[in-house]
Amino acid sequence: MHALIYKEEGKPLVYEECPDPQPKDGEVLVELKAAAMNHRDVYITQGLYPGIKTPIILGSDGAGVYEGREVVMNPAMNWGDDPHAQSGDFHILGLPQNGTFAQKVAVPANKIYDKPAHLSWEQAAALPLAGMTAYRALFTQGQCTAGQKVLISGVGGGVALFAFQFALAAGAEVYVTSGSPEKLAKAKEMGAAGGANYKEDNWHKSLLKMSGGGFDVIIDSAGGDGFSNLLKTILPGGRIVMYGGTRGKINGLSPQILFWKQASIIGSTMATDAEFKDMIQFVADKKVEPVVDQVFDLPQGQQGFDRMAAGKQFGKIVFKVSE
Amino acid sequence: MHALIYKEEGKPLVYEECPDPQPKDGEVLVELKAAAMNHRDVYITQGLYPGIKTPIILGSDGAGVYEGREVVMNPAMNWGDDPHAQSGDFHILGLPQNGTFAQKVAVPANKIYDKPAHLSWEQAAALPLAGMTAYRALFTQGQCTAGQKVLISGVGGGVALFAFQFALAAGAEVYVTSGSPEKLAKAKEMGAAGGANYKEDNWHKSLLKMSGGGFDVIIDSAGGDGFSNLLKTILPGGRIVMYGGTRGKINGLSPQILFWKQASIIGSTMATDAEFKDMIQFVADKKVEPVVDQVFDLPQGQQGFDRMAAGKQFGKIVFKVSE
Repeated sequence: MHALIYKEEGKPLVYEECPDPQPKDGEVLVELKAAAMNHRDVYITQGLYPGIKTPIILGSDGAGVYEGREVVMNPAMNWGDDPHAQSGDFHILGLPQNGTFAQKVAVPANKIYDKPAHLSWEQAAALPLAGMTAYRALFTQGQCTAGQKVLISGVGGGVALFAFQFALAAGAEVYVTSGSPEKLAKAKEMGAAGGANYKEDNWHKSLLKMSGGGFDVIIDSAGGDGFSNLLKTILPGGRIVMYGGTRGKINGLSPQILFWKQASIIGSTMATDAEFKDMIQFVADKKVEPVVDQVFDLPQGQQGFDRMAAGKQFGKIVFKVSE
Repeated sequence: MHALIYKEEGKPLVYEECPDPQPKDGEVLVELKAAAMNHRDVYITQGLYPGIKTPIILGSDGAGVYEGREVVMNPAMNWGDDPHAQSGDFHILGLPQNGTFAQKVAVPANKIYDKPAHLSWEQAAALPLAGMTAYRALFTQGQCTAGQKVLISGVGGGVALFAFQFALAAGAEVYVTSGSPEKLAKAKEMGAAGGANYKEDNWHKSLLKMSGGGFDVIIDSAGGDGFSNLLKTILPGGRIVMYGGTRGKINGLSPQILFWKQASIIGSTMATDAEFKDMIQFVADKKVEPVVDQVFDLPQGQQGFDRMAAGKQFGKIVFKVSE
């Protein structure tokens, strides 16, 4: 087969021929039609991820065909028995084992699910990792239900966009933040009730005003010094779910606001197999269409890495896989 | 009747005669046998509480007799309908309405409960506010169950001691922190599996070692710069419940630790009426005996305020009320 291979640390990825994956016991070989990028892939090529090894075929997200069946794959391996947290053996497809930026990938047979029929290959490939992360953060940890007010920070990112779309599909009133006026405008076109630019002064006061007092659920992946202002926008009994920390450590957080509001700050990453299954069903039922930022042919995959590293995308960057 | 009255801001409390409380519709008059202090009472006399007015009879905790029945009172008024958070009308007995540092107090009829039979008047008076706060923090918010590892920080305080005793009574393995070697020793006599002095370097590493890897539940009322080290001792999926913030704002908190561990930081204050009822039942069933630090006769109540302001107490400071 051919694959986009990360051959040497710090060097561009190379599309070239390599041996087909050899499925181990309990694994199946999926012929990929599309794959999608995550920040994780970029972090690995930047040396910012634990356990990096080369050569490696990156990629956690993919959709393809197994014995005539159209499937998507759950990239989360060895979660373990505790629904509250992943086990020490947990890992993600695409490091240490070879991933989806290839014509074929070997995955455990219990990690493949029917592709929702309304999705194109590109849309289906965009779904797994970001979709499952958003689903657990929003519903399991955030306890989002119809009619609630929800804030999604940094709405351009893959997980944030799924959280935004899932919250809308669940009947919530959804607000967003972004540092980009263009991304705020796109979110409003898609159904956001309002949005604020976190680069402007008093953005949290704007959000309090437009939402009529704050949010039941906030989904954040920034942290940093702005986080203490986010806490000011949570309603009594509300939940702030964090699935990332791109702005670094949190400073100036008030215990008094937290306990008097009976608010929670809840960490979340990835999802259980049961949540993955529920997420696929939710997407099929609600006809959610993943937002695809741009599609590159897999041989030109390095261009996708460059685009994501520049942070320009709105939605998922997808690779089309050809025979 | 006679009462310990806070007559003028900044002045010592005065024990003197004053009119009996006049119960409003739905209220009953309880003849008090004992009352107990909370930090709230001291904060009010220090001008560190919202809505201070004088003259006022302070005191949220009390036990006494209503029509021959031995009762304790729930001091939390107007929680409202949402179990997740108190309403905007919520307030606590002892400000704005007159409290328990008196021979008689008027309370709503639905706020009195049978005194657990194994408790003295002084022990029963020590129970309500701190007991209900500890109960909600530990069980509702912290989801503490038998066999879990639990850490209680600052074990000398009233809420912390109840959380400690309740966790032991629930079958948890309980660890403590304190800045005082004497308080750590007392907690170990009472059943603590281990303890660490937070004034020593690497106290959190000691806790990790002695607990064999960390805690399912942490109950904290400090916050401040030490909080980020507490987060390092939480187990995957664990809960840190905060009911205070005596050390001020939290700095240096790592989003990455929070989300990778799927940990939660949960604010908690006071409790619902249902939780108060459950707490009284739990204390009766498990024969929990509140720790009484020292008993003063109510006319000498100012001495109790001085003792609490100095932070020397281990357990509750109680006032004995005589006819």
